[in-house]
Amino acid sequence: MYSYEFLKRFSEEIFLRIGCPADDAALATKVLLSADLRGVDSHGVARLSGYVRLWEANRLNGKPVVSIVHESPSTALVDGDSGLGLVVGPKAMEIAIEKASIAGTGWVAVKNSNHYGIAGYHAMMALEKDMIGISLTNASPLVAPTFSAERMLGTNPIAVAIPALTEPPFVADFATTTVANGKLEILQRKNESALVGWIQNKEGLPSTNPGELKEGGALLPLGGDRDHGSHKGYCLGAIVDIFSAVLSGANYGPWVPPFVSFLPVADNLPGDGIGHFFGAMRIDAFRPAADFKKHMDQWIQRFRSSQPVPGQSKVLIPGDPEREISKIRMQNGIPLSEPVVEDLKKLAKKYEVPFDLNF
Amino acid sequence: MYSYEFLKRFSEEIFLRIGCPADDAALATKVLLSADLRGVDSHGVARLSGYVRLWEANRLNGKPVVSIVHESPSTALVDGDSGLGLVVGPKAMEIAIEKASIAGTGWVAVKNSNHYGIAGYHAMMALEKDMIGISLTNASPLVAPTFSAERMLGTNPIAVAIPALTEPPFVADFATTTVANGKLEILQRKNESALVGWIQNKEGLPSTNPGELKEGGALLPLGGDRDHGSHKGYCLGAIVDIFSAVLSGANYGPWVPPFVSFLPVADNLPGDGIGHFFGAMRIDAFRPAADFKKHMDQWIQRFRSSQPVPGQSKVLIPGDPEREISKIRMQNGIPLSEPVVEDLKKLAKKYEVPFDLNF
Repeated sequence: MYSYEFLKRFSEEIFLRIGCPADDAALATKVLLSADLRGVDSHGVARLSGYVRLWEANRLNGKPVVSIVHESPSTALVDGDSGLGLVVGPKAMEIAIEKASIAGTGWVAVKNSNHYGIAGYHAMMALEKDMIGISLTNASPLVAPTFSAERMLGTNPIAVAIPALTEPPFVADFATTTVANGKLEILQRKNESALVGWIQNKEGLPSTNPGELKEGGALLPLGGDRDHGSHKGYCLGAIVDIFSAVLSGANYGPWVPPFVSFLPVADNLPGDGIGHFFGAMRIDAFRPAADFKKHMDQWIQRFRSSQPVPGQSKVLIPGDPEREISKIRMQNGIPLSEPVVEDLKKLAKKYEVPFDLNF
Repeated sequence: MYSYEFLKRFSEEIFLRIGCPADDAALATKVLLSADLRGVDSHGVARLSGYVRLWEANRLNGKPVVSIVHESPSTALVDGDSGLGLVVGPKAMEIAIEKASIAGTGWVAVKNSNHYGIAGYHAMMALEKDMIGISLTNASPLVAPTFSAERMLGTNPIAVAIPALTEPPFVADFATTTVANGKLEILQRKNESALVGWIQNKEGLPSTNPGELKEGGALLPLGGDRDHGSHKGYCLGAIVDIFSAVLSGANYGPWVPPFVSFLPVADNLPGDGIGHFFGAMRIDAFRPAADFKKHMDQWIQRFRSSQPVPGQSKVLIPGDPEREISKIRMQNGIPLSEPVVEDLKKLAKKYEVPFDLNF
């Protein structure tokens, strides 16, 4: 177990080493660790060395000037200047929130960015302003559209955060695939099988081998197969890709640059970096926020109290599991797997930052 | 086969009989028949008698005054005055488009409406203005959230229409369930089984009996079960419900009034009628429309040319199948099932409108 405070100090030091100004290092750390707190281990400190390697490969700018390229009363196109998505994302979401405070809603498409951590962090920024927050991003191609043997889309997540009154907020944050890549890696380590509907092999045939992805196979869109609605998951992933990247002028589909620095970037890229899309909607641009939040409470309470199926104790509200884990981890610390600890120790050594619980 | 022109004349006459002004009767007919043309038979003239019965039950206003209750530069709350969703929907989408033309984007939440036909019609209205169109609606509860034995959500569709340059537009339009209710009805008539992941029985256990829905069972959210991501489909259905109804002041979740007039409306309704949510985003509020559309063409061409899986001839773009069917049906006519024809003939007799191909 590693305390939040320890991982925070360590991550901030590392971000300073790759040239981030102090404010940006603190912000990037906050976004990164929000994933560890919420139990999305694949998007937290496990990725820290990945960001550093992108910087080492000259694919990441530690001191980006995030700027508005074009705007209208309710929109902006933002250039992330090849910065950390962990920094570019919150800055772009701030612009969406500012737009919404005047125009009712704010919508920001971002180009020239990198991986922005968990989608939910950015969406949740809207909550304290009595706004609904929306956060989308594209990602490197790992997902095959329905009927495609090729990987054409990323896991392209959707996050939507909605405030309530006395109830905690509704926070949906999910990849548009049936299953997370991280789950496959765990199965592979345990030498266990994947389920039908999660992956296909490089020929495009269904497979239950969790190692398939490393051999040219693909994750499947939410739905799994055509008979179970995978064309709908494909639509969702495609919409996220187009809003994030075609609308912004970033790279889309199979041209999205890989997060891992050891994979080559495609030739003849159609755009700049990866893309995100953020939205903020002021509740009282539609109806009084107090009325809305009272009804959200009723919505949440009614859904939470619905009769569970046999074998389950209750129906959950989106955001419930992550909030529970967050409370526990803030108190008891964050568990890290052995390979992640090894990776952080290597980083510590290389950049001369102590990896020591007393640090 | 029934020609578009014939069904158009017939439907318009029927809408006139329930008190619609001529313009509204023409608009409602256009929206209704767009479903038949696009192959979404469950949402076309098959529903005509359903709308009439709602009117007969005093639950539908033939002459609604659709009005803006509240607005900001990029938003409006619209009261549908208990009108046909087929009329309220396009009028609300027009408001979203007007807002977008000035503020960059326009977002309209609608309360006090009824079933609005196919979601895609409204989203596609944005295309000719070089805008992205979005259309969501809630619907009567038929879907069980993950782990719930109760029906809490409608099939709550999502439609997104995106313009391209020389390619036809990208049009996604899908229910947030694994399968459409209409598919179950067809299986039941043929005495065939449903697939695992489509439905559960009234206890909340998985079932393959297509008649389950009529016995208190439920449709399952996209994903089918927890292991295949049904919590993500539940999130999607919930987001559509909240945007359409909690944001507008319509009824949500289990309180959404049923489309069929023979089912009772719940007591102590939290809102007015059913709700919709519309969005329009001007492309050039982000980047020049010509640049965007050129990239959309590349997106579409690259996806369409991706290597298909064994046994499939090609990868489709959302909107491809519906456009194909539409072309064929406009030319050759629209096939109607025997029960639908019988239903229309009864309507014809009751309202003294000839159901005669020479009419």
